[in-house]
Amino acid sequence: MSAGTQPSGGLDFEGWTCPLPLRHTPNVVMGHGGGGAMSAELVESLFVPGYGEAAATELGDAAVLPPVEGRLAFSTDSYVVKPMFFPGGSIGDLAVNGTVNDLAMVGARPLYLSTAYIVAEGTPMEQLGRVAEAVGRAALAAGVRLVTGDTKVVDHGSGDGVYINTAGVGVVPEGVELAASRMRPGDRVIVSGAIGVHGVAVMSCREGLEFGTTVESDSAALHGLVADVLATGGDVRVMRDPTRGGVSATLNELASASGTGVVLDERLLPVPAEVRDACGLLGLDPLQVANEGKLVAVVAAEDTDRVLKTMCAHPLGAEATVIGEVVADHPGVVVARTGIGGTRVMDMPIGEQLPRIC
Amino acid sequence: MSAGTQPSGGLDFEGWTCPLPLRHTPNVVMGHGGGGAMSAELVESLFVPGYGEAAATELGDAAVLPPVEGRLAFSTDSYVVKPMFFPGGSIGDLAVNGTVNDLAMVGARPLYLSTAYIVAEGTPMEQLGRVAEAVGRAALAAGVRLVTGDTKVVDHGSGDGVYINTAGVGVVPEGVELAASRMRPGDRVIVSGAIGVHGVAVMSCREGLEFGTTVESDSAALHGLVADVLATGGDVRVMRDPTRGGVSATLNELASASGTGVVLDERLLPVPAEVRDACGLLGLDPLQVANEGKLVAVVAAEDTDRVLKTMCAHPLGAEATVIGEVVADHPGVVVARTGIGGTRVMDMPIGEQLPRIC
Repeated sequence: MSAGTQPSGGLDFEGWTCPLPLRHTPNVVMGHGGGGAMSAELVESLFVPGYGEAAATELGDAAVLPPVEGRLAFSTDSYVVKPMFFPGGSIGDLAVNGTVNDLAMVGARPLYLSTAYIVAEGTPMEQLGRVAEAVGRAALAAGVRLVTGDTKVVDHGSGDGVYINTAGVGVVPEGVELAASRMRPGDRVIVSGAIGVHGVAVMSCREGLEFGTTVESDSAALHGLVADVLATGGDVRVMRDPTRGGVSATLNELASASGTGVVLDERLLPVPAEVRDACGLLGLDPLQVANEGKLVAVVAAEDTDRVLKTMCAHPLGAEATVIGEVVADHPGVVVARTGIGGTRVMDMPIGEQLPRIC
Repeated sequence: MSAGTQPSGGLDFEGWTCPLPLRHTPNVVMGHGGGGAMSAELVESLFVPGYGEAAATELGDAAVLPPVEGRLAFSTDSYVVKPMFFPGGSIGDLAVNGTVNDLAMVGARPLYLSTAYIVAEGTPMEQLGRVAEAVGRAALAAGVRLVTGDTKVVDHGSGDGVYINTAGVGVVPEGVELAASRMRPGDRVIVSGAIGVHGVAVMSCREGLEFGTTVESDSAALHGLVADVLATGGDVRVMRDPTRGGVSATLNELASASGTGVVLDERLLPVPAEVRDACGLLGLDPLQVANEGKLVAVVAAEDTDRVLKTMCAHPLGAEATVIGEVVADHPGVVVARTGIGGTRVMDMPIGEQLPRIC
């Protein structure tokens, strides 16, 4: 590319040094998405240094990767969270952790990620640079390589800062079979820690909705926790990360797909006081609030203690706890036992409480 | 999901029957991106039927796929073309063919695609349905399975109809090594057919720019053509699909990456009269206009005839022709011999002539 023939140096934006040498523009312009010199420059001078060690040496249109021994896992998610930066993280962390977690939930070891950006014209280069650095840091932490990518720019008014799509490829170890159809009455439902944290953190800084809270997003890559759990040899039937729609949507999906019922005990739900307060203020159900660093696992009753103990020994599962069980009654329906001894049907959320939470 | 328990039937929008049973809404609303019942319904009642036979039976958060023997190819692209429907195709065709072609350009046989949508609130359900059907048809034609996906909805004013990201996984046959570093002086440069067609087709119906033309997009999946070419055993050094930035950007990238020079003969360039006229009208260089169903191949001189003959025997390469050669002079620089005997340096395009062409 021609970037190498340009004078070096860069602009300094509030502590973030913009390394773009060719055209000293503080904002993204349409030309950065055109596939010409400016696009090449954005890759070479912003994404590659931002990604750091997590990037493959060549970020081409397609990556050629060594053979993978075993079944492949393949997943994709687009991230449109608003605002892009929130307490405890950014869209960059989410874009890596979310797709890594989707791979982890089928028992896979994540290997490679693609990153594709849709950037609105006028987005400060400094913001895009901070997002790229967050992607790089999260990928390095999760042990995945960023091997291929794409950048498109849309006109101001046809986008909103930065949207990121990540797709991920992983390998599923032999013998691992996780599926809702393997759920049986008597199985226990475990959640790996406090729920509702990510959603409340994002809401707390949403324009027009700001409220004071000390809650930070729980965004994290869960494949290490999953690997530890699978290594116990306990019969884990199925796992899911309760993101959009929260624990409620996840359990309804599992109940529906398995043809079993699920009974929760509301008194056992790990809802932090700050989340409960915020949800009370906003009229939300913590069970329907998005999480980004938690998993729900359905485990054979006899293996529950072993799995729980292993989870609790992992930093990301330290507060893991049993919250309910699988029943033969009311197939497809999730019911919650309330604190005063009654029960209520926990419906699948219809739409969403607050949009663009991931 | 609960969709099965709802009354069946649908609304008829100008010939496209909307199969959504639960909430008869003619437009996409924020709830369709919330991960709850409406999201599930969109997958079950719009994407799955729209995709038809090309869809895997289960469109989950992550797909588990059988082992692949050989090196993996992995690619991603987001598509933001405006308008979404244009002469000869739509964003749905592009989203499949573009990623299939990125895989084909490294010599891979495409196997699986993911599809991730970012839809603007208020987008007519009928348009989303037509896009999904186009994705399904193109995937079926290209022989790839649609195995996993995602849908996000952004508020009106933060998007523009439908944006699609596709990521693709393929397998690279043993012995196939395509790289710009393999280019040598004397190699011939082949283009598989008429250039500038896709770009002109999209521009011709761009709001505020409409002009009459009979040109239709050349959007097509090129992996069949590539497989035929590789089967000749001829020494193909490298291949690229000249999309954004056109043939000019592609050749500049190849020259730069290989450290060789490229000389084109302008009189040999297959530019249809309609494209030449439209480019004259708009003040554009056909060499910089996007293509979506063409490839550029650099081939060892002694194998050029064999490769060219094979290309011409394929419907997508019928008009393939040699347009230039690789030289030791002016490394990294592309030069065009003009019709009147002079030469001009063919620069890397800086930004783009017209944005959002793919």
